[in-house]
Amino acid sequence: MSDDPVHFRCDIADGVATLRLDRPDRKNPLTFDSYAELRDWFRALPYRDDVKAVVFGSNGGNFCSGGDVHDIIGPLTRMSMKELLAFTRMTGDLVKAMIGCQTPVVAAVDGVCVGAGAIVAMASDLRVASHDAKTAFLFTRVGLAGCDMGACAMLPRIIGQGRAAELLYTGRAMNAEEGAAWGFWNRVVDRDALEETAQDMAARIAAGPNFGHMMTKTMLNQEWSMSLEQAIEAEAQAQAICMQTADFTRAYEAFVAREKPVFEGD
Amino acid sequence: MSDDPVHFRCDIADGVATLRLDRPDRKNPLTFDSYAELRDWFRALPYRDDVKAVVFGSNGGNFCSGGDVHDIIGPLTRMSMKELLAFTRMTGDLVKAMIGCQTPVVAAVDGVCVGAGAIVAMASDLRVASHDAKTAFLFTRVGLAGCDMGACAMLPRIIGQGRAAELLYTGRAMNAEEGAAWGFWNRVVDRDALEETAQDMAARIAAGPNFGHMMTKTMLNQEWSMSLEQAIEAEAQAQAICMQTADFTRAYEAFVAREKPVFEGD
Amino acid sequence: MSDDPVHFRCDIADGVATLRLDRPDRKNPLTFDSYAELRDWFRALPYRDDVKAVVFGSNGGNFCSGGDVHDIIGPLTRMSMKELLAFTRMTGDLVKAMIGCQTPVVAAVDGVCVGAGAIVAMASDLRVASHDAKTAFLFTRVGLAGCDMGACAMLPRIIGQGRAAELLYTGRAMNAEEGAAWGFWNRVVDRDALEETAQDMAARIAAGPNFGHMMTKTMLNQEWSMSLEQAIEAEAQAQAICMQTADFTRAYEAFVAREKPVFEGD
Repeated sequence: MSDDPVHFRCDIADGVATLRLDRPDRKNPLTFDSYAELRDWFRALPYRDDVKAVVFGSNGGNFCSGGDVHDIIGPLTRMSMKELLAFTRMTGDLVKAMIGCQTPVVAAVDGVCVGAGAIVAMASDLRVASHDAKTAFLFTRVGLAGCDMGACAMLPRIIGQGRAAELLYTGRAMNAEEGAAWGFWNRVVDRDALEETAQDMAARIAAGPNFGHMMTKTMLNQEWSMSLEQAIEAEAQAQAICMQTADFTRAYEAFVAREKPVFEGD
Repeated sequence: MSDDPVHFRCDIADGVATLRLDRPDRKNPLTFDSYAELRDWFRALPYRDDVKAVVFGSNGGNFCSGGDVHDIIGPLTRMSMKELLAFTRMTGDLVKAMIGCQTPVVAAVDGVCVGAGAIVAMASDLRVASHDAKTAFLFTRVGLAGCDMGACAMLPRIIGQGRAAELLYTGRAMNAEEGAAWGFWNRVVDRDALEETAQDMAARIAAGPNFGHMMTKTMLNQEWSMSLEQAIEAEAQAQAICMQTADFTRAYEAFVAREKPVFEGD
Repeated sequence: MSDDPVHFRCDIADGVATLRLDRPDRKNPLTFDSYAELRDWFRALPYRDDVKAVVFGSNGGNFCSGGDVHDIIGPLTRMSMKELLAFTRMTGDLVKAMIGCQTPVVAAVDGVCVGAGAIVAMASDLRVASHDAKTAFLFTRVGLAGCDMGACAMLPRIIGQGRAAELLYTGRAMNAEEGAAWGFWNRVVDRDALEETAQDMAARIAAGPNFGHMMTKTMLNQEWSMSLEQAIEAEAQAQAICMQTADFTRAYEAFVAREKPVFEGD
């Protein structure tokens, strides 16, 4: 796992890795290469200990313009089914890698956030936007279906089945205020405050308890399609595991001592 | 499949079929006959190519008053279990047929929208209402349970589990503004603008990409109870299929030529 | 099943059982004993006929402060895995018992509603709050995960996946107005009106149809992870059963006679 990726930027400080796509002149499109490198970066995350939260940030006033029309869509129109499935699985694998990375991800979204970019925001755990954020699931605009990288599963759970259906069928943009009212954004702030707000959120999460956060992320995914009784048993097991961490004892001892707990992640 | 149904109205123009129940003097109740004929109409939809979107409209200021008390509820009180189950399965089959019809449905709801009428609105993909729309899941008012035609599954996914529980236990009316704030309605407009708004929405959907829309509808249903990983793989397959349609190439070529794509549905 | 529990208060009148935790000086924490006694009380509920709705109320200006730090958290830090799992399963069993009690529960939440207290509110069917209600899923504050007693399954279905993630990762308080806007609370009223509002809601539910309400509650849980088609078939069966109750006939006859139906629960 490289901390110096080729196809996106990655800065790690104080336990927070900040990623950005890096073609701001074109509103940060995804390419075959950046998809694959992002997937590999998130896949490696469970095996390293120095990254406790991730910010997926914007660059040059925009988050991500999705799959590049020239670099991706053109070639796709000429591919065999075998190649197409390899591509759609790779894009899906990025989402799977983000969901399975065991580390909370905060999306910091400014400006354009469309297509696969909207999916990356959606696959994050927390989402902050600027008032200028414009989010659209553009797949139908290029002749495809709204079901891309898990959109028909995730979007209804975030903003409701009816609103999701409209965005997915029409590809229309959801503005920042709609996104806040509908629960897509956890917070909407001025463009100037976006980076700081997301970094603050990530810093608070990075302060721990990291083992607990890892388990919260794991269970939000695990329980997606369980029955309620199965979920309750699964959480009984997951939380019992957390109760044997030293961070649980640290929190208790800090409480008794009327101090703020300092978590260490074990 | 008849384009001249006996128990409801059906007008087809420019790829949009507009359905209406047709007993406006009684606020358009459903009857045994209209249930069955609607079910059959939606079941036949996947096999015809001229209907690309459906509007389920209102009539005489109301959408639908649900199962008629005299024509349906009276007889039900005297039926055997075998007959009752045949009836509840028929009503459920209407919902299954709407969900499986492979064609987006826009409900245009004015005035009364209650009981099975509220379910028909809910089983549509997009929902527009007038400010006068009053929606209620009245089943408990007639001594029954809120679980009717899939209500306990669908309503929580649209407006959230807590709000759904209230409407289903109490049968109280949700007014148009609540329905908009809660995500039940995609848009609320003046009564005068209702028909045009719904027709505009349907026309935009009918303009395609129809194969993509069919797949979006299919996957929104398919992924209902999948795990997130299963959904992502299912979408990788579904979208790869869409990438081999001519409409995908048409969209790309239109983009390169800086034109608006004209979709043809294949 | 005792109507005179030791570790919480229980008053039964007119078919409504009103429960309250009873350590108002400490904001009503849960203890090992009250968890177990509440679980047993809810487990016995399906076998008695005189309780048709439950109000889980506040006491002394607060709902519940969650698991007591001294009485519960301290001992947990010293337990074996076997003991820990027995504890987390017991807390989960309280939620399972509330969900399976076949009787609608209305939470009436004033002031502090945190940790396991927030779960109890969430496991109720309807939720009323005062403007002073402060709800927080504090588990991460004590070094644990947000997955506790089914939180990662229930909260996303009530307020959406994105908002739920924030509350579960950060443990931050959701104020009453947020809770109303997000669909957590069915109503927010002045502190003075809280008790009466909840009792009114419970009284209306207690008026029946109780068999129907029991089935609504059962199916809201049963359909949690079914496919939509499975849910529709399950409801066809459930509603057919309800159509053979006398309350269904009573409602029909009252309608014909232009009277208000009087339900008797069979």
